[in-house]
Amino acid sequence: MKHILSALVENKPGVLSRVTGLISRRGFNIESLAVGPTEDATKSRVTAIVNADEVAYEQITKQLHKLISVYKISDLTNDNAIERELVLFKVAASPERRGEVVEVSNIFRAKIVDVGKNSLTIEATGDEAKLKGLEDLFRAYGIKEIVRTGKIAMSRNAKE
Amino acid sequence: MKHILSALVENKPGVLSRVTGLISRRGFNIESLAVGPTEDATKSRVTAIVNADEVAYEQITKQLHKLISVYKISDLTNDNAIERELVLFKVAASPERRGEVVEVSNIFRAKIVDVGKNSLTIEATGDEAKLKGLEDLFRAYGIKEIVRTGKIAMSRNAKE
Repeated sequence: MKHILSALVENKPGVLSRVTGLISRRGFNIESLAVGPTEDATKSRVTAIVNADEVAYEQITKQLHKLISVYKISDLTNDNAIERELVLFKVAASPERRGEVVEVSNIFRAKIVDVGKNSLTIEATGDEAKLKGLEDLFRAYGIKEIVRTGKIAMSRNAKE
Repeated sequence: MKHILSALVENKPGVLSRVTGLISRRGFNIESLAVGPTEDATKSRVTAIVNADEVAYEQITKQLHKLISVYKISDLTNDNAIERELVLFKVAASPERRGEVVEVSNIFRAKIVDVGKNSLTIEATGDEAKLKGLEDLFRAYGIKEIVRTGKIAMSRNAKE
């Protein structure tokens, strides 16, 4: 099962490598990982998508809690959380087919960010299903390159 | 100096931890890190923002090249590359001030993705300067939470 692990960690050299090392030592692959600064410069937020069953996932979080550089861990998997990812696609597009690629992008509210002689670079954000749908459509034209940020998540704020 | 390191690596447990470990062992902090699947399921793309001088950065990439799980490394720093990041902001917004926060979001082409009693969750993408500008404006209302993906980059395709 896919878990969305969100951790607040100390922003200093070595912390990231300890966190990823702890997960991978148990043989679990990190499908995606996003790490960025937070509102507090001394802390970073790590969002990792980990494929593991309940028991194994609990072991991972218990071990992470033991690291003094890990301040807080949330499992946003069953939280009805807001999930988002940013993807840059470089899609093959000859001048004759450019219009079609632009049209597909517009339908998905994706933005054209660069135009080449025979390619378009498109920025898209959304959840997994939307981005998968867009990728499948672009595949028909030929995808030259994909760069993804990895998923981030935030709990919904109905009560706040 | 900030470097944008983009690496194509093998998608298997332990690779990520070796890459981040190699950088942090030299005492360099990874400011942001984004790891996601690519068009080829056996490979992942790692984008890391590393603060290091030229000599140190060269040493890091030389060491990374020695890892058999690292297929390709590009430095997109001086490449006039397309840089993008996705940020989720949870901004304090009482019903009376909600309109102002929505207005600021619209100016920056950011999207409202969730509404709470006293907060709004906003999704924004862009380069560092744009996102910094938006963050500064939201700070006046009160930022309850920020989650960032970390920066990704792609070379421009003028010739392709």
